[in-house]
Amino acid sequence: MATSYNPNLYIALIHYPVVDRHGNTIASSLTNLDLHDIARVAKTYGIRGYFVVTPLPDQQELARRIVAHWTAGYGARFNPNRCEALELIRIEATLERVIKIVELENDQKPDIIVTGASNRSKSTGYDELRNCLKTDVPHILLFGTAWGLSGDVFEKADYILKPVIGSTEYNHLSVRSAAAIILDRLLAPNR
Amino acid sequence: MATSYNPNLYIALIHYPVVDRHGNTIASSLTNLDLHDIARVAKTYGIRGYFVVTPLPDQQELARRIVAHWTAGYGARFNPNRCEALELIRIEATLERVIKIVELENDQKPDIIVTGASNRSKSTGYDELRNCLKTDVPHILLFGTAWGLSGDVFEKADYILKPVIGSTEYNHLSVRSAAAIILDRLLAPNR
Repeated sequence: MATSYNPNLYIALIHYPVVDRHGNTIASSLTNLDLHDIARVAKTYGIRGYFVVTPLPDQQELARRIVAHWTAGYGARFNPNRCEALELIRIEATLERVIKIVELENDQKPDIIVTGASNRSKSTGYDELRNCLKTDVPHILLFGTAWGLSGDVFEKADYILKPVIGSTEYNHLSVRSAAAIILDRLLAPNR
Repeated sequence: MATSYNPNLYIALIHYPVVDRHGNTIASSLTNLDLHDIARVAKTYGIRGYFVVTPLPDQQELARRIVAHWTAGYGARFNPNRCEALELIRIEATLERVIKIVELENDQKPDIIVTGASNRSKSTGYDELRNCLKTDVPHILLFGTAWGLSGDVFEKADYILKPVIGSTEYNHLSVRSAAAIILDRLLAPNR
């Protein structure tokens, strides 16, 4: 049972390649609260690392400054709990680099789980994926910013997670809310 | 079964009375993304109304301007989905007013559900509260900003909801993340 609460799971927030409202592939901008909120959720659910992925050097630098403020600067003394969460963040240029880093750390190729708001064929449900996470196999769970991950990321997926469906037809959650709900569904004890 | 997906549930985000890091009662400032993220979650889960509660006139005015931008201004045309969500927001000065409004709308006194990060005696679990929400009784679910709702709000509670516990000891979620997880636990179909 203990393995279900200590999964070998990493998450990655992707700023490229994602799509805009018209379906064009873009690099999106960082949102400060994506770093904070998702890091705090990741810490709550025992995630091994939270990769923030952007190819843009100025955006990488901005992310580094935010993380440094809360992990090494004044913010770390002001709010040690925030420091503990933001220490999980690692800034990388590409998803390919993230996959290689996780493979190196685990000496094993990770399985890639892709999330999105649309229904797709061959998607995996939450209970099924909970069971997959009980093994020692490393997994990386990908979240898209802007209007979601671009189609070629879905082609890399070992699993496509079913979208979060509430009790209405409305499915326009922020990535922050979706990440919170998904990690709770996959990792909360006593379900 | 249908009633479980269409509960008579309202939510309220409280900016006063809440506590600061030292436990002193304060009025907290608005956070723009609290309005957006929680409204989108509320719309996803069929919530009847999302009350943003602050006694400060300048903060009420700020909230009104944000909501107006997305529901009547340029934002409504730019992003109709955001409009649909932010239309749920109602700005009120006090929790007492919120309770009276919900009572008037329903011709019945609402039950008050209070949330917080600490374990308290006589708290209610998620499955038990899911069952309570299957009745027609109106309920208001309260979320605190800053370091959480002040003690006297807990004294008004008909239910104190158990805190969100992840798979670690860390329990410092943002109110945005906590609201997303709590509404999913209480209202997601097929659990």
